[in-house]
Amino acid sequence: MQTIRIVLIGLGNLGRRFCEIVVDKDPLLRERYGLALRLVGAADSRGAACDPNGLDWAEVARLKRAGQSVADYAGRGQPGWEALALLAGCEADVLLEASPVNLAQGAEPGLSCIRTALTRGMHIVTPNKGPLVLAYQELHALAAEHGVRLLFDGTVAGGLPAINLGQRDLRGAIIHRLEAVPNLVTGFILDEMLQGRSWDETLELARAEGVLEADAAWDLEGWDAAAKLVILANATLNHPARLEDVQRTGILALDAADLRAARERGYRYRLLAQAERQPDGSYTLSVAPTPLPAEHPLGRLGSKQVGVVYTTDIYGTVSAIIDEPDPIPSAATMLRDLLDVFVMRTA
Amino acid sequence: MQTIRIVLIGLGNLGRRFCEIVVDKDPLLRERYGLALRLVGAADSRGAACDPNGLDWAEVARLKRAGQSVADYAGRGQPGWEALALLAGCEADVLLEASPVNLAQGAEPGLSCIRTALTRGMHIVTPNKGPLVLAYQELHALAAEHGVRLLFDGTVAGGLPAINLGQRDLRGAIIHRLEAVPNLVTGFILDEMLQGRSWDETLELARAEGVLEADAAWDLEGWDAAAKLVILANATLNHPARLEDVQRTGILALDAADLRAARERGYRYRLLAQAERQPDGSYTLSVAPTPLPAEHPLGRLGSKQVGVVYTTDIYGTVSAIIDEPDPIPSAATMLRDLLDVFVMRTA
Repeated sequence: MQTIRIVLIGLGNLGRRFCEIVVDKDPLLRERYGLALRLVGAADSRGAACDPNGLDWAEVARLKRAGQSVADYAGRGQPGWEALALLAGCEADVLLEASPVNLAQGAEPGLSCIRTALTRGMHIVTPNKGPLVLAYQELHALAAEHGVRLLFDGTVAGGLPAINLGQRDLRGAIIHRLEAVPNLVTGFILDEMLQGRSWDETLELARAEGVLEADAAWDLEGWDAAAKLVILANATLNHPARLEDVQRTGILALDAADLRAARERGYRYRLLAQAERQPDGSYTLSVAPTPLPAEHPLGRLGSKQVGVVYTTDIYGTVSAIIDEPDPIPSAATMLRDLLDVFVMRTA
Repeated sequence: MQTIRIVLIGLGNLGRRFCEIVVDKDPLLRERYGLALRLVGAADSRGAACDPNGLDWAEVARLKRAGQSVADYAGRGQPGWEALALLAGCEADVLLEASPVNLAQGAEPGLSCIRTALTRGMHIVTPNKGPLVLAYQELHALAAEHGVRLLFDGTVAGGLPAINLGQRDLRGAIIHRLEAVPNLVTGFILDEMLQGRSWDETLELARAEGVLEADAAWDLEGWDAAAKLVILANATLNHPARLEDVQRTGILALDAADLRAARERGYRYRLLAQAERQPDGSYTLSVAPTPLPAEHPLGRLGSKQVGVVYTTDIYGTVSAIIDEPDPIPSAATMLRDLLDVFVMRTA
């Protein structure tokens, strides 16, 4: 049995659910892979807890479900203990960095935590887009320098292995075009509006469903899709894209009449992120609401689906879609990435 | 620059096209991955050629396009030289085993070649279903014993990374159901018949397009789909399935009236391979022509598309489809697998 020591930073939607997944999967992970996951440290915005012998995953999840902080963990928690300080005092194999996207504040505290952990020789698994959008190349160079893995499959398109597909399965290809509908909530909103709901009703419903970020503009103005496109472009197109390279149009200018007119022609609107290869080998990047015909691989996405299409020279056109009725698949990407680091592929 | 020494056995549709892909991709492979692929031996059904300093990939491809044998390779070829004998005399890093599926004859010569190469410490890349259907567990045990990789992404669903997706990206999951339309030609045939063509016309057309195997029953009676399901089940479901475990119905009993009746209800027939998890953790396996509704992830496959759907506990429902207008993606799976062995993932 191999024990993997984990520090988990961020206990929101994804971090808390990851704890629940570990509770559920512990027997399977031991039996199938000979792995035991030990939570040696955890932090949220109010404090942290640490135990080299392992915190109880179930107790951390329970505290968060009850609206408390991991700082309330009996005997181990400490209010005001910051993530970076926790990290400095923990011996661990992996940092799971699941704090919220925070581009406005330089992707902190995630970016500093990832830098610190890499420098200390820890592998990184993160669904946090911020640090990768701001510092993709720097963080990869640091990971290479310290001989550790940096995995972030959960940053794009929820639980869909969109990055893995492009990065591993299309090796050797030239990708002529990448198309993605990587943002769930805009599809949900467009479909609700098509049903006749007003903007206000729709946003309220999206908030009630927990799919809309606190800062609605992040989704509605296409920032989230653009951030995901930047990560996809770096990871799968070998193209060092930055956020300011993306031509970005959000969905705010659309109204129900536009959506209905498209439907009458057999089209469905989605916020489409695209990268198109140019003759010089670079890519133009754009995010815009786009009416997609039914024959398009992403033309029939449901309200809880996201997807990606790679048009390549030697691997044909490969599309992948996930049906994700709740945030569990997004949280499970951290398990996918962890197992990618620690499980030898048997085949 | 790392040089990879390759023995290629089988120079039919896939083997010959792989040579062409290498010619095309040689500069990219050197630049992007620092790899040079050296063909130290090649065999087809009429003979073989060998050169430790490397045969010319372009010349081998040219010979095959001209209807000749690699045995005709000037100065290096020898008629009647058998694959197994070639292998015994070659120092190489990888065996690419691309000989035709031949279950009737115990999957030979592929199976013996793979066993020999594994024992000699060579990695295996193969799109040949036969050896994996007959000896999945044995070959994997041999590979593990000798510390080499055995990759076979091309055995299932053409160029679609269906195995990789299930085996790597769904680690840690319980797969409740696997559905695949892994056989291209039956979809093509069903669509042609729906257009009003007779069975005879349709088969003739499929042969002219080069998509029908010499032994048509292999495709039409569902053997090909069943073989692919057996490999998928072993690779992704952790289920040691054998060919005789598959409930198999081919497409021969369907006629145009069935297809039209389905279309009128909004359904499309495809030869569907399914694995369904049972309460005891085992799987029931079946292959049968199935009318799929438009909302099904595989319900709108075109004539040149195949696909797979995994319904899981923690990763949602993930589907992937490839549009494969020619056999290049199927041949390119060998490049994908090769790079999987030799390229360190940078992320």
